Order: sequence, then C-alpha cells, then structure tokens
Amino acid sequence: MAGVTDIITLSHGDGGVLTNKLVRELFLKTFSNDYLDSLEDGVVLDNIPEKMVVSTDSFVVSPLFFPGGDIGKLAVCGTVNDLAVSGALPRFLTVSFILEEGLSLSRLEKVVVSMGNTAREAGVTVVAGDTKVVENGHGDGIFINTTGIGYLEAERELGYHTLKPGDKIVINGTVGEHGLTILTRQQNLGIGESLKSDCASLKDIIKGVLEKFTGIRIMRDPTRGGLATTLKEIADLSQKDFEIWEDKVPVEGEVKWVGEILGLDPLYLANEGKFITIIQENQAEEFTSFLRQHPLGSNSEVIGEVQEGRGQVLLKTFFGGTRPLNYLAGAPLPRIC
Amino acid sequence: MAGVTDIITLSHGDGGVLTNKLVRELFLKTFSNDYLDSLEDGVVLDNIPEKMVVSTDSFVVSPLFFPGGDIGKLAVCGTVNDLAVSGALPRFLTVSFILEEGLSLSRLEKVVVSMGNTAREAGVTVVAGDTKVVENGHGDGIFINTTGIGYLEAERELGYHTLKPGDKIVINGTVGEHGLTILTRQQNLGIGESLKSDCASLKDIIKGVLEKFTGIRIMRDPTRGGLATTLKEIADLSQKDFEIWEDKVPVEGEVKWVGEILGLDPLYLANEGKFITIIQENQAEEFTSFLRQHPLGSNSEVIGEVQEGRGQVLLKTFFGGTRPLNYLAGAPLPRIC
Repeated sequence: MAGVTDIITLSHGDGGVLTNKLVRELFLKTFSNDYLDSLEDGVVLDNIPEKMVVSTDSFVVSPLFFPGGDIGKLAVCGTVNDLAVSGALPRFLTVSFILEEGLSLSRLEKVVVSMGNTAREAGVTVVAGDTKVVENGHGDGIFINTTGIGYLEAERELGYHTLKPGDKIVINGTVGEHGLTILTRQQNLGIGESLKSDCASLKDIIKGVLEKFTGIRIMRDPTRGGLATTLKEIADLSQKDFEIWEDKVPVEGEVKWVGEILGLDPLYLANEGKFITIIQENQAEEFTSFLRQHPLGSNSEVIGEVQEGRGQVLLKTFFGGTRPLNYLAGAPLPRIC
Repeated sequence: MAGVTDIITLSHGDGGVLTNKLVRELFLKTFSNDYLDSLEDGVVLDNIPEKMVVSTDSFVVSPLFFPGGDIGKLAVCGTVNDLAVSGALPRFLTVSFILEEGLSLSRLEKVVVSMGNTAREAGVTVVAGDTKVVENGHGDGIFINTTGIGYLEAERELGYHTLKPGDKIVINGTVGEHGLTILTRQQNLGIGESLKSDCASLKDIIKGVLEKFTGIRIMRDPTRGGLATTLKEIADLSQKDFEIWEDKVPVEGEVKWVGEILGLDPLYLANEGKFITIIQENQAEEFTSFLRQHPLGSNSEVIGEVQEGRGQVLLKTFFGGTRPLNYLAGAPLPRIC
C-alpha cells in the first residue's frame, strides 16, 4: 500500500477512490479467489449440496494482538469452529470490517494477512466482504464480522435431542487459556506472562472424528462463558443432567494459579480451540485415545457423564462435594472475542 | 424486557445470564422461527438449490433513526437489495450486533422490531445471530452486520461481461434522498427538513422485472458513492463507456436545492431504494413503463446508454457540454449506511 496515506481515514469508508484502493490493494490481494475477484454485489456459489450450515459472529477482542493470535485469526477460527462443531465442513466465509479513523494501515494489514493465512490453513474461501469506517473515538481499531457457510455432507443427526443417560462428556484439552490470556493483557496485570491463547481451527480434528465415530451426539465449542456455561446451555436445551468430575477437567498449571490469584474459575473462562463432545458410552474411551493423537487433542479427557434430569450441571469437586454449575453471571469479562 | 436493567451493560455481551436473557426476550421473540429457535451454534438450512448468492454488509449509520427509516430497516434492506440486484431471491439473513455499553434497551428494542418488520415484509428469515458489547466510548450505540443468502433460481446470466453498445441505462426513480437526509441530520443543519430517505426493499419490484424481461444485462444498487460512482464501477469492470443524460436523471426538488446550498452533487449521494438496470435497447421503453406502475418505480427514467469504450462515464450536461464522472473522491460522506 505504498504511496497511500498510512492511516485509515473516513474516506476509506465512503465507497469512493480510497475504498476501492483498499479493497484492491489489500483485501483482494490477500484473499484472492475467483468469487471475490468478480467484485459483484452478491457472489454466486454453485454446486451447493442440499444441506448447509450457517453461522455468524462479530469479533471485538481487545487487545487486537495477543499471545497465540490476533483478532483476524480469531475471527476466522471462531466461525470455522462454530460450523465444524455443527457437523459441517466449513467452506466459505464473508468478512466485514468496521474500522476506526486513525487506525494504522500496517496494523490492519497485519490482521488481514493473518486472516488470509488462517483461512488458507482451514480450507475456507473468503467470498464476499465489506468495509465501513467510523470517526475516531466511535469505534476501537478493528471490529470484524465473519459469517460462515459449511456443507453438511454426511447425514448425521447431531443435536440436543439425541442425548441419552450414560453418554460421556469429552473435552479435547486444557480449559481457560484464551480468556485468561486476554484478561491479563487487557489489564496489564504483569502476571501470567507465559499464558497463550489456544486459538486454533478445529476443522481437521473434527473432520477426523466425524468420519470415524458414529456415536457422537453433539459437539459445542466452549467460548464465551467457558466450559461451565456451555455445558449448562446443553443441559438446559436437552433437559438432561450432567455430572462433571472436577479432577478430570484439564487445566494448565499457570491458568490454575493465575486464575486463583484473580479469583477467576477456569471453568468460566473462554476457549477458542476447544470442543466438548458428548458421545455414546461405549465409544468414549476409543474416542478420547483417538483425540490424543492429534496435536489439538493431546490433553483430551472424559470429564463427565449424562444422567436423567432436567437441565442441571453438577460438579463433583476435588473434595468429594457437589456444586451446581450455572450460567456465567455477575463477573463481566468484556471483549474476550 | 420489564424488570431487567434498562441499559445495555458489558454483561449483556459476556455469553452468560444477561446475554441469554437478551437473546430469548428480545431477539428470539422478534425474529422467531424454527431455524433460530434451535439455538444451535450453526443452523442447518436444507432444500438449498444448487446455486445461491451471498452478500455481507455492516451498518454504522449515524443517527440511528432518521426520516424514512432507522439502522435496523437499513440493515435488512441493504443486504436484501444486494441479493436482489444480483438476480437472486433473498431468503435468509444472519444478524450480528455490536452494542455500546450504556445504550438504552428501548432504543435497541425499537431497532430490532424494525428489523423484524422489514424482514417479514421482504420475506427473509433471520436464521442466526450474535451480540457483542463494547465499553462506553469504544463503539457508537448500535452497529449491525447482516449477511444474506438468496436463491438463484432462474438461469440468468447477469454480469459485467454481458453489456453491449446500444444497451440502455435505467434508474427506478429520484436520486440522492438517503445520503442528503443523513447528512443534514448528522450535522443538524436545520435545512432540508422534509427530506426523507428512500430506504426500501427492492425485492418485489426486482422479482417482477426479472420474471418479465429477458434483456436485463446487469442491475446494481447505487448506495455509497451514489449513482455516479456505481456507474463508473460498472463501466470500469465492463470496459464500456456510458453516456448519461443529466436532464433525464430524476432529482427531487428539495434534494436539488439543498444539494446546491451544501455544494453536494446528487449524483454522488447515496440511495437505499434505487437500482440501476442496464437492458438491451429494444426492451428499454417497455421496461421503464413497467417500472412506473410500481410504487418504487413511479419516477423511472432511461438515463443513458452503453457505448464502445474503455470505462468512461460521460455526462451530457444541461448546457450541452460533456464532463466525465469519476469515483467519489475527497468529499468524505461518513456513516451514510
């Protein structure tokens, strides 16, 4: 983008010369493909199978760059993962930016390049986009919306209604890294300096298990609200109870002690490279062993089981007691994703 | 939403209790349908035809409410219109909000209800959504992303490459209302008080003409950058020249004089209920007469024609002269949509 002003101005969002320049010299260059290059208002996708899955998310994470990722990587992985846990093969993304006047073009470029790399790795194509600019002080650097389309190829019936008592609950690794990494950076706490977000595309690992395991009931990614809130949502919607074994939930050492200092329970901290699987009892062990062979599943564990009930999540604590896990409440953890 | 705090707090965006309450009591209530009610991370759409069209837009218009519409109506119409001008039948929308802490819940409710009504009128279903909240002073009330999916049912080949010399250029009415309405409100100029945005869903009128006229080459909605910028884009991409007859371009009286006072050319002001059609010569008159029978087309005019060339738009002025129309440049018109 040499020769252009090196900061984002309101004119970059007015649909004129500078918008055009930004689109051609940054977005088209980074995401280049036949769909996007057509520059039509609406892009035609063909050879679509009969069933597809759609998911949308806006990303407002602060700071824009953090150990383990940045808002661009997160915006791609977040939507790719939502499609993957729904049992779909992620295929297409739309990307829409809300930029703040005064943003440096080099920061934007870094984020866009990161999105391009992550999309390529995840095998998704950016087919449409949009850019708006708001005045300085009316936004915060970069907000990104991604909307994803995936193909539902296999006829798999995943969903809340498929859960049965005895089903096992599995997580593909340690929880809380993303949330705690962002929080400690937001507040410059000077602790947890080796913390790193787990932000990653789950497309490949999930594709692998969907092909191999017929007993998968449902998958969900425990992002905002963490493992506890996501489990509570599934329990509520399925009207089953879940028993969760605290000593089985993998938590990395630094997450544990930094969480303790800050009074934050890792079970309520966001993850961006984790998925919960509920699977029929007799496949749970093999499933967990299979996950452990994948780099994104090396710390996989069976952490609990489904019971008859009406939507409670009960944590069997280290000390042999039981406490209910409810939705995250009263501890606002802003701008985690 | 009685009994809840009446302003948006950071907790409304943390994925916990308040997020859930907002989703259930406002979004699900307003947009209710089977897709959305499933509350899955990714929603399954089935019976999809082989070809579909996707379009995405973020909306940051300021003020949120204006004569003729509001950010909610605009966010639905904007994406619906992008699909319609692509020759698709708009079917599904995803909706994603970025809210500013401190926003009054009643303002949000008004916008969401307006979106619900507009979506119903346009016959599109809201199938997925997301809500994020940013701290006071890091956003501006409400930003909305909508991503739309339409079905390309008829096998119509619309596109830049189909243009031929002699083709006529048609607009379905007066230009500049939306842009000038927003600008005068943004700056509290106290003039143009009877100005009103033309914000409207073009789905029906476009469906009608697509069914009846086989000679349509391309359609585009002249939003940001106005009629002139959109024509220049089409000319550039098709590598044809366009001759535009200034005395044929419909401009409403108040837009003309307020534009003159402010030094703004209506040809460069945004529209939100207009579409340009390029159609083969021998169908242009009948097409224009047909449009005039529709409430959104009563001021339709043939405004110019396609000529051999390499991407110039030439305006034949009232005074018999010729001047080139280029992309909007140097006059930032912020937050029009």
